[in-house]
Amino acid sequence: MTIMINGQLSTRIKADDRGLAYGDGLFETIEVSRGRLVYWQRHMDRLTDGCKRLFIPAPDQAQLLDEARQLLKPESDGVLKIMITRGSGGRGYRFPEAPVPTRLLSIHPKPDYPVEQKNRGVSLGICTTKLGINPLLAGLKHLNRLEQVMARSELNSSRYQEGLMLDYEGYPIEGIMTNLFWLSAGELFTPDLGLCGVSGVIRSIIIELAEKNGIPYSVDRFTMDQLLAADEIFVTNSLIGIWPVKNLDSQQFLPGLMTKKIMELLNNEREKDLEYKK
Amino acid sequence: MTIMINGQLSTRIKADDRGLAYGDGLFETIEVSRGRLVYWQRHMDRLTDGCKRLFIPAPDQAQLLDEARQLLKPESDGVLKIMITRGSGGRGYRFPEAPVPTRLLSIHPKPDYPVEQKNRGVSLGICTTKLGINPLLAGLKHLNRLEQVMARSELNSSRYQEGLMLDYEGYPIEGIMTNLFWLSAGELFTPDLGLCGVSGVIRSIIIELAEKNGIPYSVDRFTMDQLLAADEIFVTNSLIGIWPVKNLDSQQFLPGLMTKKIMELLNNEREKDLEYKK
Repeated sequence: MTIMINGQLSTRIKADDRGLAYGDGLFETIEVSRGRLVYWQRHMDRLTDGCKRLFIPAPDQAQLLDEARQLLKPESDGVLKIMITRGSGGRGYRFPEAPVPTRLLSIHPKPDYPVEQKNRGVSLGICTTKLGINPLLAGLKHLNRLEQVMARSELNSSRYQEGLMLDYEGYPIEGIMTNLFWLSAGELFTPDLGLCGVSGVIRSIIIELAEKNGIPYSVDRFTMDQLLAADEIFVTNSLIGIWPVKNLDSQQFLPGLMTKKIMELLNNEREKDLEYKK
Repeated sequence: MTIMINGQLSTRIKADDRGLAYGDGLFETIEVSRGRLVYWQRHMDRLTDGCKRLFIPAPDQAQLLDEARQLLKPESDGVLKIMITRGSGGRGYRFPEAPVPTRLLSIHPKPDYPVEQKNRGVSLGICTTKLGINPLLAGLKHLNRLEQVMARSELNSSRYQEGLMLDYEGYPIEGIMTNLFWLSAGELFTPDLGLCGVSGVIRSIIIELAEKNGIPYSVDRFTMDQLLAADEIFVTNSLIGIWPVKNLDSQQFLPGLMTKKIMELLNNEREKDLEYKK
């Protein structure tokens, strides 16, 4: 793994960083395809928005792009992770009036998911670990991720490739590392993320694509019964794009025509947003 | 600040530590009084319990104590912070089957709160930032502390020394950095921490002291109305002991006799638990 911290190649970060002390920061996980950063601008927009919400000075996007390019190998595939924290600080929750954020970029191999997960779908377990409800932090890809860590540990040695997380009140919200969509009678549904969950880049794109292509869609709080009555279910994130869901707990679903259509729309969109070539 | 990481003096931690990536760990904040670690065993018990709940191998307590002693100056006052994380890991929520935890000990100056906060009480504001509800993580002093960071930022340039945090459903739970108690008609009340909040060492001691000394007490979910009807209110943590509350939002309270009595009981208890002298 190659890591760049505040512009310097390094494998170590200051021990008094507030990212470590409190998870006081944000991250982005960006697909690298043949040396190009997929949906770069959308990731930057989300990161900037997140910084604003947490009162962290937003990073200089041109500088981040320059540093990312220094790390990328031409024509290689992989994952670029960018972490922005509030930087060093003393003991105590109060943050410095003029924080100097830490930026950490790292390159990782692309996860080697079996191709049939994309073609034939994945099995989704229902996690016991629930998502806490907090509108102030909802949607953010922040560094407080113990809920996901604990949820993920439920899947170990199970037959599930991903886990469905409900909020504390029992409403389905998202996968551990993915956002959730389903189709019922030709309409597309995805849970609202105003109370909890991570607002994924691919999720936003799919909502835009539905809008542009006249696919009726609804973003709201839905019940498990509504989800289980779906015709098709799929999950999304920046590294996998779309995975159809073939099982949710014990119930089977068929990777359907609408999921396939949305996969195609997303593929076309992706080609347009590959401008940042090394 | 002196820092020891896995037994070595160092100011830097590996950038792939899961404490940084996900807040995947726990911490303790221990008072150092004239070179002695106050309530050491109770802090170790809570840390061990927390590790168990997060499936992190618990640290060797004798080793931690030995390392703490290396850092402490004889007869000095201060704060020892101990952080235990799940150690290094790859990108992704899944944790290694055999994680090698990181232990980080650091010595900090004792915060210099004005002495009248202890004698005459503090003003408590009511935070807009709410505590998310999550029984799985409730009570733990884990590293996911963005709620506290955001709540603390509300107090900047305010007249409040501490902030009261409610849970998402509006029930009062704790202070940003303290636990909450109040007295009504001679009975002691403190919110249950089964849904959210940090189970403080001083809080447990005070509950034990109430039990031992025949002070009727109740640990449950209480409403703001019940809290506001209190005769006396106080907040607690390991560094301050007890602070009476003289204002909650716009309402005044008098530092009362029962608070004074519990402060005395706590002082006596503290003297007994100072055995770890350098």
